[in-house]
Amino acid sequence: MVWCSGWELASAVSNAGGLGLIGAGSMHPEILKIHIQKANQSTRFPFGVNVPLLYPEIDKLMEIIINEKVEIVFTSAGNPATWIKTLKDAGIKVVHVVANTKFAKKAEEAGVDAIVAEGFEAGGHNGREETTTMTLIPLIKAVTNLPLIAAGGIATGRGMLAAIALGAEGVQIGSRFVASKESSAHENFKNEVIKTGEGGTQLSMRKLIPVRLIKNKFADEINKAESEGKSTQYLKELLGSKRAKLGMFEGDLVEGELEIGQVASLIKEIKTAKEIVDEIVEEYLAMKLDLMGKEF
Amino acid sequence: MVWCSGWELASAVSNAGGLGLIGAGSMHPEILKIHIQKANQSTRFPFGVNVPLLYPEIDKLMEIIINEKVEIVFTSAGNPATWIKTLKDAGIKVVHVVANTKFAKKAEEAGVDAIVAEGFEAGGHNGREETTTMTLIPLIKAVTNLPLIAAGGIATGRGMLAAIALGAEGVQIGSRFVASKESSAHENFKNEVIKTGEGGTQLSMRKLIPVRLIKNKFADEINKAESEGKSTQYLKELLGSKRAKLGMFEGDLVEGELEIGQVASLIKEIKTAKEIVDEIVEEYLAMKLDLMGKEF
Repeated sequence: MVWCSGWELASAVSNAGGLGLIGAGSMHPEILKIHIQKANQSTRFPFGVNVPLLYPEIDKLMEIIINEKVEIVFTSAGNPATWIKTLKDAGIKVVHVVANTKFAKKAEEAGVDAIVAEGFEAGGHNGREETTTMTLIPLIKAVTNLPLIAAGGIATGRGMLAAIALGAEGVQIGSRFVASKESSAHENFKNEVIKTGEGGTQLSMRKLIPVRLIKNKFADEINKAESEGKSTQYLKELLGSKRAKLGMFEGDLVEGELEIGQVASLIKEIKTAKEIVDEIVEEYLAMKLDLMGKEF
Repeated sequence: MVWCSGWELASAVSNAGGLGLIGAGSMHPEILKIHIQKANQSTRFPFGVNVPLLYPEIDKLMEIIINEKVEIVFTSAGNPATWIKTLKDAGIKVVHVVANTKFAKKAEEAGVDAIVAEGFEAGGHNGREETTTMTLIPLIKAVTNLPLIAAGGIATGRGMLAAIALGAEGVQIGSRFVASKESSAHENFKNEVIKTGEGGTQLSMRKLIPVRLIKNKFADEINKAESEGKSTQYLKELLGSKRAKLGMFEGDLVEGELEIGQVASLIKEIKTAKEIVDEIVEEYLAMKLDLMGKEF
């Protein structure tokens, strides 16, 4: 949710009954501070901050998170063990994002409070095993007693019901909120998300740092560079943060990096966070009732 | 289910309350005839035959299917329009397997009775769009009024419940039955399936003819040949039917082609078809009850 989830979206989701997340990955520490403060002014409900653990100025970031009394931190892309004590000592709940059982077990050992298991269909950075949500949730469920949050392929009440049926306690929804009124994504990107159909995304850089992107000129470039055997350094630079900002925040649909899940193909309209949450919850309850009514 | 599903498995599944399928893809027409006759002697319930439409002697195959009064045919890998009239005129129900909405719509237009939608996680041949079951089922559901059968990533009652929650009317389960007592797969292959863990399969030949295989020497060879830009002809020959037979039927786990779904990572034991069907149904009903009991 880099470049998409600032205070406006996070507080709107929390106000609507979800747990809103500020995506810190695309923010300088001082910018994050402003977002946390604004979110605090905009909702009386808890919200969280997502921190990719490879963030360069992570010390400063964590200091701000603690000082600003954020209640929940979602960590990803790294080992939560490094930060768990600091965060827990500050009374912060820690949720770690994984894409395989190995890291789920490590996260539980490190002492996290809950786990997000994210399948192959999810947007952005992704696991090497390519395990889809249908298989991943039961796999992770079998190795942890922690509350399990399913991610990847979920944008509707039906998707949420399926995730709960698979054994998850909750769901993490990204793509659907990229296409929300309150998302800080560029209008061009939001419009591209709702236009993205079946097969419109692909997992790029499978061997190096798998990332699910909308197919565009930039993705073609990445794929070409990878298939030509370009160096890790070269690919990392090509995928550097400037391209993500260019695509998702500045709206360059040609040269920019556009991270979104396969489930974009089910998203047809830009709505408010409240409309989205209400719609998902209503469909979830209706489908649950429908399921109960089935003879088998 | 080539090399895995003969009369013994098909009739055992039908006797257990499922709809057993004979996989004709690996059978000469005369062999199929024997399997149909034996299945007829072994169950009084309906069973079906799966026919890959690129089958070389398809005319003979269809003639046998009609003469032997098979009630249901599952077609895959091709356009069902060519055979629909012949089959329907013979009173046979036709179910077509697809991996995208385009072919689902075409199948409905052609007049099939139901659709199987198979996600990226499924074993064997696979769609180019790489759409996973979580996303594919709602996508297909939105474009067809036909009964929808979900496939890919389903091996348990929980998986079945998730598929129904997504909007499917039924499920097609392959991998789980490969590892059944009645499967005609070689014991080596069955044992390999239950040993296959997370990340143990991969989609090979993504650009040419995507196929999900267990990672072994043969799969490495295929991947190497593809990445070296070898010709379609070369790759097709490498993937020729002999390697599938060698791996799945003759049990060569090194040189053979081993088709299985990601869900193999959830399969831990070789059981009878009846045990498998009972277990899935019991878990489905228990999980449905569990879901009903949830406050939310």
